[in-house]
Amino acid sequence: MSLPMRGLSRLLLRNLEGGQALTLQLGGSQRHASTMPVEKEGKVLHPDLLNRQVRETQYAVRGELYLRAEQLRKEGKEIIFTNVGNPHALGAKPLSFIRQGGVGAYTDSRGNDYIRKEIAHFIEARDGYPANPDHIFVTDGASVAVRMCLNALIRNSVDGVLVPIPQYPLYSASISLYGGSLVPYELDESKGWGMNIDTLKKAVQQARSEGKLVRGMVFINPGNPTGQCLSADNLKELIEFAVKERIVLMADEVYQENIYQDERPFVSAKKVMHDMGEPYASQLELLSFHTVSKGTSGECGLRGGYVEMTNIHPGTIEEVYKCASINLCPNTMGQIAISTMLNPPQPGDPSFEQHHKERSEELASLRRRARMVTDAFNSLEGMTCNYTEGAMYSFPQIRLPPKAMEAAKALGKAGDVYYCLKLLEATGISTVPGSGFGQEAGTFHLRTTILPREEVMADFVDKFKSFHIQFMNDHR
Amino acid sequence: MSLPMRGLSRLLLRNLEGGQALTLQLGGSQRHASTMPVEKEGKVLHPDLLNRQVRETQYAVRGELYLRAEQLRKEGKEIIFTNVGNPHALGAKPLSFIRQGGVGAYTDSRGNDYIRKEIAHFIEARDGYPANPDHIFVTDGASVAVRMCLNALIRNSVDGVLVPIPQYPLYSASISLYGGSLVPYELDESKGWGMNIDTLKKAVQQARSEGKLVRGMVFINPGNPTGQCLSADNLKELIEFAVKERIVLMADEVYQENIYQDERPFVSAKKVMHDMGEPYASQLELLSFHTVSKGTSGECGLRGGYVEMTNIHPGTIEEVYKCASINLCPNTMGQIAISTMLNPPQPGDPSFEQHHKERSEELASLRRRARMVTDAFNSLEGMTCNYTEGAMYSFPQIRLPPKAMEAAKALGKAGDVYYCLKLLEATGISTVPGSGFGQEAGTFHLRTTILPREEVMADFVDKFKSFHIQFMNDHR
Repeated sequence: MSLPMRGLSRLLLRNLEGGQALTLQLGGSQRHASTMPVEKEGKVLHPDLLNRQVRETQYAVRGELYLRAEQLRKEGKEIIFTNVGNPHALGAKPLSFIRQGGVGAYTDSRGNDYIRKEIAHFIEARDGYPANPDHIFVTDGASVAVRMCLNALIRNSVDGVLVPIPQYPLYSASISLYGGSLVPYELDESKGWGMNIDTLKKAVQQARSEGKLVRGMVFINPGNPTGQCLSADNLKELIEFAVKERIVLMADEVYQENIYQDERPFVSAKKVMHDMGEPYASQLELLSFHTVSKGTSGECGLRGGYVEMTNIHPGTIEEVYKCASINLCPNTMGQIAISTMLNPPQPGDPSFEQHHKERSEELASLRRRARMVTDAFNSLEGMTCNYTEGAMYSFPQIRLPPKAMEAAKALGKAGDVYYCLKLLEATGISTVPGSGFGQEAGTFHLRTTILPREEVMADFVDKFKSFHIQFMNDHR
Repeated sequence: MSLPMRGLSRLLLRNLEGGQALTLQLGGSQRHASTMPVEKEGKVLHPDLLNRQVRETQYAVRGELYLRAEQLRKEGKEIIFTNVGNPHALGAKPLSFIRQGGVGAYTDSRGNDYIRKEIAHFIEARDGYPANPDHIFVTDGASVAVRMCLNALIRNSVDGVLVPIPQYPLYSASISLYGGSLVPYELDESKGWGMNIDTLKKAVQQARSEGKLVRGMVFINPGNPTGQCLSADNLKELIEFAVKERIVLMADEVYQENIYQDERPFVSAKKVMHDMGEPYASQLELLSFHTVSKGTSGECGLRGGYVEMTNIHPGTIEEVYKCASINLCPNTMGQIAISTMLNPPQPGDPSFEQHHKERSEELASLRRRARMVTDAFNSLEGMTCNYTEGAMYSFPQIRLPPKAMEAAKALGKAGDVYYCLKLLEATGISTVPGSGFGQEAGTFHLRTTILPREEVMADFVDKFKSFHIQFMNDHR
């Protein structure tokens, strides 16, 4: 009879209930935190320290032969690709009824070469520092990029990832799905949802005392659902912390275009890292995410996103490439949307005026809507709300009266779920309860987007206000 | 210090090395095969028997509130969706420079309702049996659908999935990535890569004797890389076997349009199951996959695929829905491509003639190319090749001379890898060695597509033949 866990070479587990001393060693990589190497050759994300299942995964269709063929092609040799069933690349004409064009062939699993160069060019122009197209992977939306990275990082539940509370549930869901441990750090609502380094340090200490190995940290700038924008100084502290503690930073920067104040323009973690110089510029392991779904592009349905990997071990990039290959490639329309979003018309181009006008008007309108929503929430009894400095959301706190809490409890629901369901039934407004994002115990929030058009925003605000006044009266 | 595995409630592992008797119980679902329930309430894929990490995953943005809002919307209530940052759905105008149209909003995570109805209509017309749109999930290519299902099915390495040898490496890679066990069953090359039920039974017995729980089985019809088409009788045996052994069937039917012989037209596993009547029609747990990347559509780059779930427990469909929600939705252009592929113009429609002509000519040409490639391989010394009855590939066996085997060994490479690398260097023809798909020990194969256009196929065949003759002479 075989062992119910593959690669289990030595077993020694500490049994919580029985108090027996055991040790766990799975395939050489899954050990107890105290004996597991934090890094290897200066890298947390060393190929030897990745998820064992990621490393053991084989995928031959785009394996050694494909890589050699690509190399020969780049050297100018004519290659007949018969390794993958990719009809359009071999000259099959798209059926006219379906469409005419040139987006029907698989691209490289990291995305089209030319588009990755365009992304690198955008990053260089934004930050003033070089970007390597081979360290950029295009994906079917940024969520897929985030999941790909977390899947490689997380080996078992010893591996912890710092996640802000409140957070975007992509992170909690993916960490759970890959069997890792979420290490929460709270944002400070009383300080505009600011990130405090002492809170981070305490979260890491706490996790370590519980036997966790904190390998990664997610931050969202501008924040989702909280809307705050981080200053360069705050990012600097964060980078110092991450390098000192050997933590890989995952920078969710998908809302970088959505800024509604002038004090803290968007600055990328990569730029701050380079501005800081050594040792940070070469020691911070950084994964930065961007998308076509947000900003003024808002092309959610096309599913285009990317990750830029900075100071990531080349062997790890190879492992991620292998795993990306299993899905063959990101969709081509999303890739094209990235290309056009990052390379907008320049002054003198025929479409410059129209594009500039559309974009500026949308950003100005979003700024007005952020203000309208925040003001409305702050005008209500029992509600307080930080201003939406960036992103697309408002995240007010609701102080629920005891009678509402009792009614929620009677239905077996959390207070904010009860509130949001009542809101939905009464007004048709579909929001997300704060408990879906995490919130300080005993507090209740909800997330709403600021996306209803200005012409319907007044109606939205009126409906919300009327509901809330009625709700408070009903539960007084 | 906490336990390095979350949810580990009771520990009792059988230690291979020390021979100690222990038992493993992880969250109630991960136990040794001999004590693990094979099914619950008649379902192998019961929600209680899914991957624990899938079940424990939370995702609130499209959670209870969203589901209730969708229900209200269907009942006719006007809903203001502010739960997800989906600008176009709220009326944000797509920037003109990026594009004009209506594909910029997130759809339901299972795909657009109307498109899922169109898919159901296609299946009903094809098979003559009803299909439920809510049991159809659209994905970014069929690979994503396959992975989603395997991720739910596989809980740990006790869980085995039957996979044909040779196979398409999506299966081996995904099973490895999700930590399951691949249970191989060999196709019979001497019988046109036929599937033999006795071989299947032996594979299951062998896996069980090794402590595995065989939960799923993949079959590819028409075959990749092997090109064989299964008869209705063969499918009938397979379904009897699967129902008897309580095995979920995963029917990879992505090449259903690519048929190059008239004896065995494509017949879906779902149709055969319904033709068989009870108990099969209600007891077979069946997952069927299709795509826009293959057939005469060949729109690989658009990434559109789907899975139809038949007789799958509703709770399991909910779990899969939750996990699909983490990526928000499949890309809209791929969804539209599915719609047009499955609903081609009908006689009398303006575009019928052109579409019918393009499609028929491409299928006829593929049939000629299948014949050309097979004949070429069979004309060569030391090569034999079954005719490509369907799909897009030819998978010849190469009997390598001892000198070639020695040369390969000296370079630390498998014989077929050595052959394919030499072929690539000499001719620029990029193929995949048989070892990437699995092959009977001691045999060597390669996979080539039959996709080079007819006008270049003669050149392809000439180059291949010249290379092979030279290779055999060099290694005599």
